[in-house]
Amino acid sequence: MDLISIDSLSDLQIADLLDSARAFSVQAGSSAQLAGKVVFNTFYESSTRTAMSFATAAARLGAQPITLSVEHSSVKKGETLADTAATLAAMKPDAIVLRHRDNGAPAEVARLVDCPVINAGDGTNEHPTQALLDALTLLQQFGELNGLTVAIVGDIRHSRVARSNAKLLARLGVTVRLAGPPTLLPAGSADDGNVEQAIAGADAVMMLRVQRERLSDELGDAPGEYLARYGLTEERLALAAPHAMVLHPGPMNRGVEIADAVADGARSLIRRQVANGVAVRMAVLEMLVA
Amino acid sequence: MDLISIDSLSDLQIADLLDSARAFSVQAGSSAQLAGKVVFNTFYESSTRTAMSFATAAARLGAQPITLSVEHSSVKKGETLADTAATLAAMKPDAIVLRHRDNGAPAEVARLVDCPVINAGDGTNEHPTQALLDALTLLQQFGELNGLTVAIVGDIRHSRVARSNAKLLARLGVTVRLAGPPTLLPAGSADDGNVEQAIAGADAVMMLRVQRERLSDELGDAPGEYLARYGLTEERLALAAPHAMVLHPGPMNRGVEIADAVADGARSLIRRQVANGVAVRMAVLEMLVA
Amino acid sequence: MDLISIDSLSDLQIADLLDSARAFSVQAGSSAQLAGKVVFNTFYESSTRTAMSFATAAARLGAQPITLSVEHSSVKKGETLADTAATLAAMKPDAIVLRHRDNGAPAEVARLVDCPVINAGDGTNEHPTQALLDALTLLQQFGELNGLTVAIVGDIRHSRVARSNAKLLARLGVTVRLAGPPTLLPAGSADDGNVEQAIAGADAVMMLRVQRERLSDELGDAPGEYLARYGLTEERLALAAPHAMVLHPGPMNRGVEIADAVADGARSLIRRQVANGVAVRMAVLEMLVA
Repeated sequence: MDLISIDSLSDLQIADLLDSARAFSVQAGSSAQLAGKVVFNTFYESSTRTAMSFATAAARLGAQPITLSVEHSSVKKGETLADTAATLAAMKPDAIVLRHRDNGAPAEVARLVDCPVINAGDGTNEHPTQALLDALTLLQQFGELNGLTVAIVGDIRHSRVARSNAKLLARLGVTVRLAGPPTLLPAGSADDGNVEQAIAGADAVMMLRVQRERLSDELGDAPGEYLARYGLTEERLALAAPHAMVLHPGPMNRGVEIADAVADGARSLIRRQVANGVAVRMAVLEMLVA
Repeated sequence: MDLISIDSLSDLQIADLLDSARAFSVQAGSSAQLAGKVVFNTFYESSTRTAMSFATAAARLGAQPITLSVEHSSVKKGETLADTAATLAAMKPDAIVLRHRDNGAPAEVARLVDCPVINAGDGTNEHPTQALLDALTLLQQFGELNGLTVAIVGDIRHSRVARSNAKLLARLGVTVRLAGPPTLLPAGSADDGNVEQAIAGADAVMMLRVQRERLSDELGDAPGEYLARYGLTEERLALAAPHAMVLHPGPMNRGVEIADAVADGARSLIRRQVANGVAVRMAVLEMLVA
Repeated sequence: MDLISIDSLSDLQIADLLDSARAFSVQAGSSAQLAGKVVFNTFYESSTRTAMSFATAAARLGAQPITLSVEHSSVKKGETLADTAATLAAMKPDAIVLRHRDNGAPAEVARLVDCPVINAGDGTNEHPTQALLDALTLLQQFGELNGLTVAIVGDIRHSRVARSNAKLLARLGVTVRLAGPPTLLPAGSADDGNVEQAIAGADAVMMLRVQRERLSDELGDAPGEYLARYGLTEERLALAAPHAMVLHPGPMNRGVEIADAVADGARSLIRRQVANGVAVRMAVLEMLVA
């Protein structure tokens, strides 16, 4: 079994993963459940938190993570993805965690190899473990997901986080509103993208990272301009439900898509998201590898 | 004991390594044979497959691989190889796996340190574990090595793979034919380098990677030009024995030294080579460290 | 408890660490003392010896080191240090080893996280485990530290090694003399910086690495010029006590701050320093994590 997309998972598997991740999230220390297992942690795109999070999850279960960074990659020597996949698979790891800048790369690798493949983010396509950790975070906060309204705000068009979350949250009964600058909305989006309308009355606001490169290209790069027009300020957050909480997949551009007062405020679940990242990845590794 | 060159090994040790690697190649999972051992996996030249393969081999035996990539290296700060070797050795690892761009670097390090040193490829000199995995692959395919004829084709002059294979295969009773573009043959080679003649009737053809830089410098870089003149096409492969098989140490330049149809064809042993890489390195680590 | 500065340690803790490190330094092999523990080995500045040394120390105690190199860092994406710290801490490692180019970064991280933080070198500020390993090396050599005189020579102003050593050695009863080129002495230094005077009669001379960039800027970069004026030649070493020994934190610029004959001579403790580095870091990890 692979975890390539939220679509890879049945409803039962989603429920099992969230249950198991919740248990891991309150459990201290390590186990030897995956002792003797080797997890390839292959990142063809740079990452701090996701690579460290998967490595930590593997280690906490007693597996040996072997991390490959993009600098070492045969990609630079012009090897095709299929050949790289065949090479990795021939070494018979017990799982391959893969981040890649090309949409569909983990799916292609999964077709070619026998061991479980876990998508750690592919291009602008999906990032399923991020969506699972976000769902767990909301579940811990609100006790139930069904019936919640979540606004996802920012660079929706290029965001694999938004795409995986929109799929997963919808399946869990959450109403998802997408908003952001018009040029950063998906083509043909049903939502009009108005940030204030999306936030109004929402139970949670999930802010997305905006690449600084896009600021200069499309959205003006005067200091504070993006924040004023589209970012999550305390004023905008006040439009949400009184109990509303704030999420961000990190790394944050403070003063761009999110104001310091919001990032560090009492409503921020951002640190809990990171903690839940390890727990969710432990649950995924356990389900796929054990 | 070190593994610096094929010359480091007695005939008995070669036989033992191939036996042991064959056993590892059909064995699933990990052992705790090298539990508590620390293997330095030091790559002063970038690598995917060899670095991952050694790390996996160490992990499969229960050792802890500690990988050093060139980007972290004191080499950049101008430290001499001898000082780097002394530094690594002073940390008392149980083995040092070393890839280095300078011919002779592993031999120099081995002279300076107490622990086993394993050459993971030095410049244009040797790559003994690659030759061992190629021999294992041929042995599994043909049942016996003695009496086989193997054509090694491509950039012979700069290839540590060719050099180690030529030594090892000759000792195992294999007739080795070297072929490639005249400018890429070793100075004073006995072979005339004709690719068709080398392949004719051979039991196996081992294609070497050609650096794209060399194409533009010496061999013309029009698309398909190298393949047409020196690469392994289906037509050229048809000159070999009916049962002939194809090897390539990877990463492949498809459409340059090897045609897609050959790389992916029924005669390709390329994936098995990678799998055998882990098995051979487990055998080497076991022999040197256990 | 954290190890941010020599000031983090009580006299009793220093004595305990040196005792424990001395025991580790003569002990072969690994233990399982920290089995199941995860040590983040986060280097936001490149390093060979210190990163490998901490990883080896963690592995020797049975912990799993997870190394993050600067190339993977969210630092590049503009994340603040506080956010990076919060992210690392949220993954609940059992310790964070941190090297950072900014003075005070480990202290800031330690304020923000619950787990032990170990400073592996911050800017021009401190490098406490280096000072501890130097003290251990001197202790092994001389049997007692109290009453020794140690000359520290070179780029004092920019050296975290000098700063930590000056603090630690002074607390252990050692007379420390600082010397080097006038422009590389700390502002307001009491010492006049004369190299010969500092070395005269000293029990040990600790040479510091000089950045090659500084040579061209400030000190002339003719070959041998720095060595002749400020480096440790055999002639200068002859000014020290007859039993005097030589230390260098590495990596050495041979022929710049130290002559080959001194670096490789009978008085050199340089390799023992590296060996003691692993032992001291085992002692620190044991004290902070076990």
